[in-house]
Amino acid sequence: MNTLFSEPLKVVNCGLSSFADNLQLAGGEVLNLAWQPPALGDVEAGLALARLLRHPLVEQANQRAFEAYLAAQPVLVDVMGAAEAIPALAQSRRILHSGPPIAWQDMCGPVQGAIVGAILFEGWADNAAAAQRLAAEGGVDLEPCHHYQCVGPMAGIISPSMNLFVVQNKTNGERAFCNFNEGLGKVLRFGANSEEVLQRLRWMKQELAPALKAALRELGGLELKPLMAQALHMGDEIHNRNAAATGLFLKRVIPALLATGLPLDHLQRVVAFMAGNDHFFLNLSMAACKSMLDAAANVPFSSMVTVMARNGVNFGIRLSGTGDQWFQAKANPVQGLFFPGYGVDDAAADLGDSAITETAGVGGFAMASSPAIVKFVGGTPADAIGHSRRMQSITLGGNPAFTLPSLNFAPTAAGIDARKVVDRGILPVINTGIAHKQAGIGQIGAGITTAPMPCFVEAIRALAAQVEQFPGNAS
Amino acid sequence: MNTLFSEPLKVVNCGLSSFADNLQLAGGEVLNLAWQPPALGDVEAGLALARLLRHPLVEQANQRAFEAYLAAQPVLVDVMGAAEAIPALAQSRRILHSGPPIAWQDMCGPVQGAIVGAILFEGWADNAAAAQRLAAEGGVDLEPCHHYQCVGPMAGIISPSMNLFVVQNKTNGERAFCNFNEGLGKVLRFGANSEEVLQRLRWMKQELAPALKAALRELGGLELKPLMAQALHMGDEIHNRNAAATGLFLKRVIPALLATGLPLDHLQRVVAFMAGNDHFFLNLSMAACKSMLDAAANVPFSSMVTVMARNGVNFGIRLSGTGDQWFQAKANPVQGLFFPGYGVDDAAADLGDSAITETAGVGGFAMASSPAIVKFVGGTPADAIGHSRRMQSITLGGNPAFTLPSLNFAPTAAGIDARKVVDRGILPVINTGIAHKQAGIGQIGAGITTAPMPCFVEAIRALAAQVEQFPGNAS
Repeated sequence: MNTLFSEPLKVVNCGLSSFADNLQLAGGEVLNLAWQPPALGDVEAGLALARLLRHPLVEQANQRAFEAYLAAQPVLVDVMGAAEAIPALAQSRRILHSGPPIAWQDMCGPVQGAIVGAILFEGWADNAAAAQRLAAEGGVDLEPCHHYQCVGPMAGIISPSMNLFVVQNKTNGERAFCNFNEGLGKVLRFGANSEEVLQRLRWMKQELAPALKAALRELGGLELKPLMAQALHMGDEIHNRNAAATGLFLKRVIPALLATGLPLDHLQRVVAFMAGNDHFFLNLSMAACKSMLDAAANVPFSSMVTVMARNGVNFGIRLSGTGDQWFQAKANPVQGLFFPGYGVDDAAADLGDSAITETAGVGGFAMASSPAIVKFVGGTPADAIGHSRRMQSITLGGNPAFTLPSLNFAPTAAGIDARKVVDRGILPVINTGIAHKQAGIGQIGAGITTAPMPCFVEAIRALAAQVEQFPGNAS
Repeated sequence: MNTLFSEPLKVVNCGLSSFADNLQLAGGEVLNLAWQPPALGDVEAGLALARLLRHPLVEQANQRAFEAYLAAQPVLVDVMGAAEAIPALAQSRRILHSGPPIAWQDMCGPVQGAIVGAILFEGWADNAAAAQRLAAEGGVDLEPCHHYQCVGPMAGIISPSMNLFVVQNKTNGERAFCNFNEGLGKVLRFGANSEEVLQRLRWMKQELAPALKAALRELGGLELKPLMAQALHMGDEIHNRNAAATGLFLKRVIPALLATGLPLDHLQRVVAFMAGNDHFFLNLSMAACKSMLDAAANVPFSSMVTVMARNGVNFGIRLSGTGDQWFQAKANPVQGLFFPGYGVDDAAADLGDSAITETAGVGGFAMASSPAIVKFVGGTPADAIGHSRRMQSITLGGNPAFTLPSLNFAPTAAGIDARKVVDRGILPVINTGIAHKQAGIGQIGAGITTAPMPCFVEAIRALAAQVEQFPGNAS
């Protein structure tokens, strides 16, 4: 004690930063640790977590799940009508939406607006008011895309007459689906449902879908992982920046389109549409990520996160070990850059299935590969590198198929381990577009957000209960 | 002195590093400064340099030259036959080559091979032996591309019947030209001249050139600087990596091609050719850089470098202030990665006009934007960033049109100041392809090299002499 007080004090503060502030104000030297108790300080959840950490059942399950994810080979094999690809869509009036399940009356503006648009597109109502009534009265089944191996960006609306990309994992034969990207401006996925929006959807069905289907027949399928890997070396993180990936996709698809025998004016419109939208590849990136993560799903006891998705109100996750169960929490706010004339008060809550990209180790997890994205989502290139590094603390490993040049070609952090998230208090980072909270206005910015902690805590409790119930469990 | 030897010695070594080695072997602590005397230790040249440093005539001239470079707006406006674009090529049997002037008998294998190919392509001889004789006997005028506002990669051969990209600087109306990129493998620019090579050149003349000419008419010209700037944010340095730039170019050009009314099978071949070559944009990057630097040329007293070019034997530079005068030195060796089966003994000396990209602040100068290029040219992403930073020490400023994301969007270092090169002993870095020394084998690797110091020392002497002779010179 004598030496302690006779020498200059160096204080390490752990917990409330206000303690450190006071010491600093008094001239003291303080290192402030941004430490929080695990599991949000919930003792019961913390004990559940403690039982799962280093548990051999979980460790083995995670290894199996992670290996299945790594081994997946998503190939774009076809374009199909949604009702053909997903028989449940042909059986009743059913529309799929992004994120975890949510009832019509709880949905946010853009999702309701997009559902109205889809009802009009399907011809189930003659005008927006009638469509709204139909939905409100339960005349349409509303279900998450994820319940049907689908993903959709933003509102994520898929109705029977739309067309889907079909991505097949060559390793296990399973398929995943995503709708087509409509471009920017007034589009269904941001809740717009005007005649202009419906006309574009009709054109996509009549011209874009058959042309892409024919081109894929010419190509005999397109491997998506090498294309994504290349785009990561070209400044994309393949969630909010898809300029390079779209270019690489076009370079493969256009020669095939020209060989389809379709009329030149048809091809011209298809090429102009795709070449005019730097985000065209986003939906393919999402389907590929869904395919990789579905491969890792349903491994009992695995704490690997296989889904992160937002419905504009709640953020939902699924773990491999807990199968189809959703764990939900209110979505965190988005820190971002807004387009001129808009601000944080105009923003809808975090929305869309596109966080499947982060779940698969790209998007925000691969931001180090995409320094230029900070012009779109905010921050500095150093922040972008920091995000990618930090995600290494909450993941099961690295994906050697996706390397990050600016981290000296380190594999991207992948396979989010819900245990590590809850233990370390580090949240998965997500790059995201920001929708206006009113239907139909569209994108008003982009930014960075995180998955909310409570759904991970909930998931850990459920997984711990599962492990407890296992007969041979020694812990 | 007493304190000096009573305390531990910290030695700073400046000069021969072997002095430091000995001290380190004896257990001493040595900081070794990699210092060299300016101007290679040549006292007379050093004094000439001293007269030029901070000389108001030079400072003002450099400002004018650098501003003209920054203000240039290179636009791809047309495709023309070489003889039409450059009247001198229509007047006699004349072939242009890369680098500074060089006589036939002094040329390296690949350049001789490419000239033989061009003679066969023009029909001036029936076979390779006859073509070789014709060239050796002086039957063809051989001149540098740079003497006619042209640039060409590697051998850089341009003969009257070939077609050229026409790039116009919208700021001053001046034009610059470059030939088309043939792709990889057996190609004229690496000295190959087989029937396969000649057939490709004929096809480029018959189908590629008219299709691109028609597409450019549809487009009404294509601004190259914004496209290059975008590619720098997509992992290209637009010298040895042009994957993104080629993709961006195709995205603009293919819709225009489809609108030309040309037959579909013709368009298919043109699209397949361009989409199959990630380096297709290189020649456009070169023409744009030539255009920007020509704008800065011929400003009396300016020490800004406006040309760096290699003929496979010598490296030549031009300064703005010394106009058409070449300053030459033996090319430095290339540190690089070789394709399997090849090594340094197989390599031709540094070759081609493509160092015009580095002269304009891209290529090696913009390597920070292209971490993935180290897989092609060697080194690490940190080295790539180091090269871009180091070039800031020998340039007149930054080009705000070309920003480097990983350097927090710093403008690329541009406008090489020959004074700074000679004063600081820092050589311009160049990313380069490596040709096999025998004609026709092609590219065998890629790597990093530097411009040789003696040509800068020579240039500084000449500029100092010019400044001395100026009547109003006060120094």
